[in-house]
Amino acid sequence: MNGAEALLRTLVDGGVEVLFTNPGTTELHLVGALESVPEMRGVLALFEGVVTGAADGYARIAGKPAATLLHLGPGLAYGLSNLHNSRRANSPVVSIVGDHATFHTAFDPPLNSDIAALAGWLRGPVRRPEDAAGAGPDAAATLAAALEAPGQIATVIMPADVSWSDGGAAAAPVPPRPASTVSQKVVTQIADVLRGGDTTALVIGGTALREAGLTAASRIATATGARVLQELYSNRVERGAGLPAFPRLGFYPEQVLEQLNGVDRLIVAGTKAPISFFAYPDQPSLLVPQGAQTHILAEVGQDAVAALVQLADLVAPGTTAEVTGPQRPALPTGALSLQNWADVVAALLPERAIIIDESVSSGTALAAATAGSPRHDVLMQTGGAMGDGLPLAVGAAVAAPDRPVVALVADGCVMYTASALWTQVREQLNITNVILNNHAYAILRQEWSHFSNRPGLASPDTNPLFDLTNPQIDFVGLANAFGMPASRATTAEQLADQFSQALAQPGPHLIDATVPPAA
Amino acid sequence: MNGAEALLRTLVDGGVEVLFTNPGTTELHLVGALESVPEMRGVLALFEGVVTGAADGYARIAGKPAATLLHLGPGLAYGLSNLHNSRRANSPVVSIVGDHATFHTAFDPPLNSDIAALAGWLRGPVRRPEDAAGAGPDAAATLAAALEAPGQIATVIMPADVSWSDGGAAAAPVPPRPASTVSQKVVTQIADVLRGGDTTALVIGGTALREAGLTAASRIATATGARVLQELYSNRVERGAGLPAFPRLGFYPEQVLEQLNGVDRLIVAGTKAPISFFAYPDQPSLLVPQGAQTHILAEVGQDAVAALVQLADLVAPGTTAEVTGPQRPALPTGALSLQNWADVVAALLPERAIIIDESVSSGTALAAATAGSPRHDVLMQTGGAMGDGLPLAVGAAVAAPDRPVVALVADGCVMYTASALWTQVREQLNITNVILNNHAYAILRQEWSHFSNRPGLASPDTNPLFDLTNPQIDFVGLANAFGMPASRATTAEQLADQFSQALAQPGPHLIDATVPPAA
Repeated sequence: MNGAEALLRTLVDGGVEVLFTNPGTTELHLVGALESVPEMRGVLALFEGVVTGAADGYARIAGKPAATLLHLGPGLAYGLSNLHNSRRANSPVVSIVGDHATFHTAFDPPLNSDIAALAGWLRGPVRRPEDAAGAGPDAAATLAAALEAPGQIATVIMPADVSWSDGGAAAAPVPPRPASTVSQKVVTQIADVLRGGDTTALVIGGTALREAGLTAASRIATATGARVLQELYSNRVERGAGLPAFPRLGFYPEQVLEQLNGVDRLIVAGTKAPISFFAYPDQPSLLVPQGAQTHILAEVGQDAVAALVQLADLVAPGTTAEVTGPQRPALPTGALSLQNWADVVAALLPERAIIIDESVSSGTALAAATAGSPRHDVLMQTGGAMGDGLPLAVGAAVAAPDRPVVALVADGCVMYTASALWTQVREQLNITNVILNNHAYAILRQEWSHFSNRPGLASPDTNPLFDLTNPQIDFVGLANAFGMPASRATTAEQLADQFSQALAQPGPHLIDATVPPAA
Repeated sequence: MNGAEALLRTLVDGGVEVLFTNPGTTELHLVGALESVPEMRGVLALFEGVVTGAADGYARIAGKPAATLLHLGPGLAYGLSNLHNSRRANSPVVSIVGDHATFHTAFDPPLNSDIAALAGWLRGPVRRPEDAAGAGPDAAATLAAALEAPGQIATVIMPADVSWSDGGAAAAPVPPRPASTVSQKVVTQIADVLRGGDTTALVIGGTALREAGLTAASRIATATGARVLQELYSNRVERGAGLPAFPRLGFYPEQVLEQLNGVDRLIVAGTKAPISFFAYPDQPSLLVPQGAQTHILAEVGQDAVAALVQLADLVAPGTTAEVTGPQRPALPTGALSLQNWADVVAALLPERAIIIDESVSSGTALAAATAGSPRHDVLMQTGGAMGDGLPLAVGAAVAAPDRPVVALVADGCVMYTASALWTQVREQLNITNVILNNHAYAILRQEWSHFSNRPGLASPDTNPLFDLTNPQIDFVGLANAFGMPASRATTAEQLADQFSQALAQPGPHLIDATVPPAA
């Protein structure tokens, strides 16, 4: 077999089932190899940011990596922003990047560039087989690296002649290095902290935000009185009726410092100690209260869930978790507001839904509204790179075709990756896209008002660079242009009606929901 | 003044007039500084690839750089592909990238990344002022670096606290290093080559593709019998009635080797010796005929025009250039074909038009059809990164608001940067966008058939990864979603009618032209 086939066969043997791609000439033999390795499903996107965001969403729901296939340096470049989000989510991704034939690069043709430098920006390992015989082993090593806890972007650069040459063979899967476990000593020390009577907060993140971790954290809180908070942006959070729920850390420094006010001891599991998302003049970056002591129960990449369960068994034997009861808001009425759109979603959310939350400044009411909705998962944009929402929905729906996906995306995020709608239609994915349309980069207006040292300018309300009303984007027309059924909602009644209908029908739908900008 | 204002004021003093941007929180003080430096025009785009492609188009037409302003590493990442095209076009660009405050980076917040590594991928210099006092001098040095012949991407990373802190001052412009001139000795040696009687070809590129260079090359050809060819993909080509015209080098190796068949001496000016765009098994990368000798008249970055004029004065004194006469095809009729759409454009092209050519496999008839149309400029995608066409049109139209811009863009290129249409509407730019819609990645089918070692697969015509018919994109609806008037043409008569109307009306228009795929 040729190198391309050896690569794909090795990945399939290692459990990879989906290849998201926007290919070009240097990847043609990999496209061809999809026919001889039919266990690998190729999913086409028209833009690389959709490819990479979809792989992230897939990994978060499937619990294993998808592969991405991109066209040399420029193709990878377009995919980098959502790979940055993946990196911050600790999602495993096998990133395959085609390159010129090994003998061609020295002539520096127009598409030539330092692909390894770009891939290295993601901090994961980069491999580049020099011949077809190397393709299988490099694929196996790359897959193992992607899977290494907590998950990372592992890249394999495939020169075109490595792909097209014979002499390849599938390589046996390489077992990934397992997550390191937290020592009993650390758990015991932190148990002592919890028993010490100081005011204590426990900040959890990563895999600890699924049922086992949430349950352990709740037991600890109930037994010891510790305040539990969840990290701000997460790979995946299990929520809803029957699960414990905890407040998220705030976005602004003063919010976090208020949440941690009076805390003497800060315990961290599966995430980092709280830091501000952005810096502001005269505000701290590290948001640990003055004088408080930080204790790391589990670093990112360690088995935080096991550590929390052990800790709960020490400090809360016999204590059960407090779970949220089933509770939905009544269906609201009237013009859409930042509260009532969230209430509509919460009131109608189906069983086992996957919520994609890129609602940005329009989403402040969502978490509270949906706390007692049927159990669901929430995937968030983790790295601050806009435009992750619609692609995450693609990947989540490919990973779980039997689950309804609800993508809640602010209007300012759509145009980075709008062609995700095309792939949603092409693959007939069960996604209800709700565009929260305030016709503005409202988050920038909000941020602007947050700076103490902003110049005395015209009001941000009139700054043309924050304003998206000229022209207004017709998201119904945009969706229709890709063949997607779509509708517009300006009242809660309309949103409820359209949301119900979209969920009841197979395939993707879009609702352009007119909402007021956040104050 | 704060660092942000010092940066912008320095750039304005150096002649920069336009800032294309998609800003975020770390760039807010730079957005604010636009109000106190009103000579800098801020142009908003909804996606960074539009920002950078527009800056490229602006530079090619204005002959001086625009600035771009992007949001940390992920914002730059989305802008990199079109900056890659800029790099290959040797366009000057001042790339400003906002970053976290200097004191915040060490905490590695979610948006943190190695911005300098990304910017360094473009091979231009990268600066990062450490305080507001450094902003002006770094801006001046960055502008000078961008302008250094032949033009490059020069980056200045602006930490948020450098932007917001007081203590800045405008710095005086730094004169850029001028283009090096070709020595008289080299010109004389090459004159001897031309006089030597060997079969000679002259390949010209870069700035030599404007009137002065074309005229000199034509004089040389007429006097010596040398065959003149122009490089395949160029920053800007002056064409049309009254100018000399030369065939472009082909895309495939065998085409170029045929064009250079029998050549003993190859003279190169303003470009590199011909290489294949992609590699193919059993095909050479360097496309110089066996045994032919290559002579460099002017390297990229040297003053190729002056060298050609000197050479013409040596070998062709008194010889005048042969120019193309005014000659337009008759308006064709019938269903659109790859020939007749080009004939419609050629027949109706207005005076002083700027053609943006990203027509890919649909554009094979364009150059011949328009050779005798009124004088115009052609801007091409230079680096092989798809999605440059619509943004280049934005930049060209901002640079030359009095000239009609005609963007000829293949359907497969649109979805990388579709929101360029939004900026076209917002700025009411005089752009006629013609989408050459064959509902396929036809170039990939064509490339596939070009490989001698392709596996015996199902026909590429049925490979789903080359097919864009499921779903078909309605480009009329897409344009309308951004508030742009649009229409669909399936016949030459319709195209002629719609093209004339679009040109006659101010502001942007789009025509979705149904064309057959290239064979």
